[in-house]
Amino acid sequence: MAAPVADKAISIDDLRTFCLAALAQVGVGEEDARTTADVLVTTDTWGVHTHGVKALRGYVRRLRAGGLRAGARPFVASQGPAWAIVDGDSGLGMVVSCFAMRTAIAKARSCGIGYAGVRNSCHFGAAGYYTAMAAEAGLIGMAMANDTPSVTVPGAKGRVTGSNPFSFAVPTGEGDPILLDMATSTVAGGKVYAAYTLGKPIPEGWVVDEEGLPTADPAAFMRGCALTPMAGHKGYGLALMIESLAGLLTGAALTGQIASWMASDPALPTGHGAAFVAVDVAAMMPLGDFQQRADALCRELRASPKAAGADRIYLPGEIEWENRRRALDGGIVLPDDVLASLEELARDLDMEPLHPGAPRR
Amino acid sequence: MAAPVADKAISIDDLRTFCLAALAQVGVGEEDARTTADVLVTTDTWGVHTHGVKALRGYVRRLRAGGLRAGARPFVASQGPAWAIVDGDSGLGMVVSCFAMRTAIAKARSCGIGYAGVRNSCHFGAAGYYTAMAAEAGLIGMAMANDTPSVTVPGAKGRVTGSNPFSFAVPTGEGDPILLDMATSTVAGGKVYAAYTLGKPIPEGWVVDEEGLPTADPAAFMRGCALTPMAGHKGYGLALMIESLAGLLTGAALTGQIASWMASDPALPTGHGAAFVAVDVAAMMPLGDFQQRADALCRELRASPKAAGADRIYLPGEIEWENRRRALDGGIVLPDDVLASLEELARDLDMEPLHPGAPRR
Repeated sequence: MAAPVADKAISIDDLRTFCLAALAQVGVGEEDARTTADVLVTTDTWGVHTHGVKALRGYVRRLRAGGLRAGARPFVASQGPAWAIVDGDSGLGMVVSCFAMRTAIAKARSCGIGYAGVRNSCHFGAAGYYTAMAAEAGLIGMAMANDTPSVTVPGAKGRVTGSNPFSFAVPTGEGDPILLDMATSTVAGGKVYAAYTLGKPIPEGWVVDEEGLPTADPAAFMRGCALTPMAGHKGYGLALMIESLAGLLTGAALTGQIASWMASDPALPTGHGAAFVAVDVAAMMPLGDFQQRADALCRELRASPKAAGADRIYLPGEIEWENRRRALDGGIVLPDDVLASLEELARDLDMEPLHPGAPRR
Repeated sequence: MAAPVADKAISIDDLRTFCLAALAQVGVGEEDARTTADVLVTTDTWGVHTHGVKALRGYVRRLRAGGLRAGARPFVASQGPAWAIVDGDSGLGMVVSCFAMRTAIAKARSCGIGYAGVRNSCHFGAAGYYTAMAAEAGLIGMAMANDTPSVTVPGAKGRVTGSNPFSFAVPTGEGDPILLDMATSTVAGGKVYAAYTLGKPIPEGWVVDEEGLPTADPAAFMRGCALTPMAGHKGYGLALMIESLAGLLTGAALTGQIASWMASDPALPTGHGAAFVAVDVAAMMPLGDFQQRADALCRELRASPKAAGADRIYLPGEIEWENRRRALDGGIVLPDDVLASLEELARDLDMEPLHPGAPRR
């Protein structure tokens, strides 16, 4: 039963059509546009609006300026039985990453596990899209990427590593894939920015000031101060694991060599690296047996005694999958900053805006 | 230049010899005893005394009672080009895990990446020993294991998942491997226990009480309350990734099916699972090129501007490698709880104690 479409909701089809039109206008081919639009729109259906269609304007700017190549053809630069290094040809991170995850899945199908490292890519959006691809095909997926520095490390005071995202997903039988998608910083920069625009303090521990000391002032991050690594040395360590698999091993740019996809010269490539791992469950155990084991684990987790004040125990990704079902049924109410970005994109490209004439603020 | 041996320091050779004698006495063969002793003693040289020789007494108890099989022969139960499922034959976790990591390395040498999942193992000690094996052979290593529940999950109040450890290591050229070894709980249970024995409060956020609410009282953990997952939903998610690769996929016991290696009936197997991944750098890039890239990254990290009050920026594992060099030179001063455990072990086995006659408290 479809939920009633909320007042300012946009249908998923309309949102996808808008993205396709914008990408077509800057010369992205139909298939690559479909891929990119699906990654971005799916991310918004999950409720992860910081990594969805809001970013399209920035990508389009780079596509027009040439730092992102609209006609890029990611290719396997070198490979072996269970691995490949993919050169992204300075293409859209979504196109490159889907190509690479498909490559990792194909390697896993023949060898049991597959690794695809990526260089010459760009910002890849939500890592969870790519691991969901694997899980929906019956494989366990891992995805990670390096990024331009925004996070400090223990003992330092400035921006040293990227917020290097990490995702994994596991197929289940009865439900949606178990799906974790996280930054290795304590919080995403977007949360600090939101507190800043609302004039609210942030918890000490999210950001350090110019001296590397904890601060509750979100403006410090706006001035160029750093986020903290998740759980201190643990997040730092995980960020370096990601830098190793996505950067060191692929020949991609590293830490400060990586250009910001938002703020750097859009005529130049950003140099991002990424890494994708797929594990073919069916090679090791009948997929149905694995799914039954996973389902039993999920049921056990959900049935754990609840903490005071808690109604429900969620599996990783469960909130996002529920958001997605609601969005597919009833459309999405996009936050104002996302709507503003789409409006500006329409102006940039002299396109029909998404909701012509509808009052939006 | 060797540092002078501290007053109560024990030489690494003496410590290893003691472990070998204890293991021989309960029927463990020479090679397996050497493997086990090396894992445990190396862990103490790193300064990670919670996971070193202190545990030997518990393993010996299980070996005598039969839950751990002294003559176990871990074997590859099934395999493909880049993967293997290892049955640990209810052997010592150290023996099983070294076998499995060697298997993963061999798979990686032929395919680029290798996965070895493990079932029918036991507590494997410090995950970092196995990833260091990979890094010292020029590969990137990952290691993880599930464990009996001690950690809650968001929304729950009791013990739901294990503190599921995770490690990775990366080879460098100039220095030691970059090596992270962490629990996916906020802190290890051992830290809470230490605060409890000292009568000190713990920071809120380490442990939840019977209602699932944060508490500063370490006694709550002693009463059976739960540790918290590292960084909330992130540590929870990572614990499930580990449960998937080490447990779901291997046929190992899961969460509450896993018996405590310390507290459960020592006549029964614990059922632990584990997983090891190795990535063969040399398949993808000349190892020397990779090492140069890694060295440059390490230099850059170390040279980052320091936070107020910080003298130095450490790489993951660097403190432990420095501890190890000091221990190899001058021996180790073991904490009192470790010495007491070794003394009790000597009594259990009617063995010569490690330091006969030496005043110890």
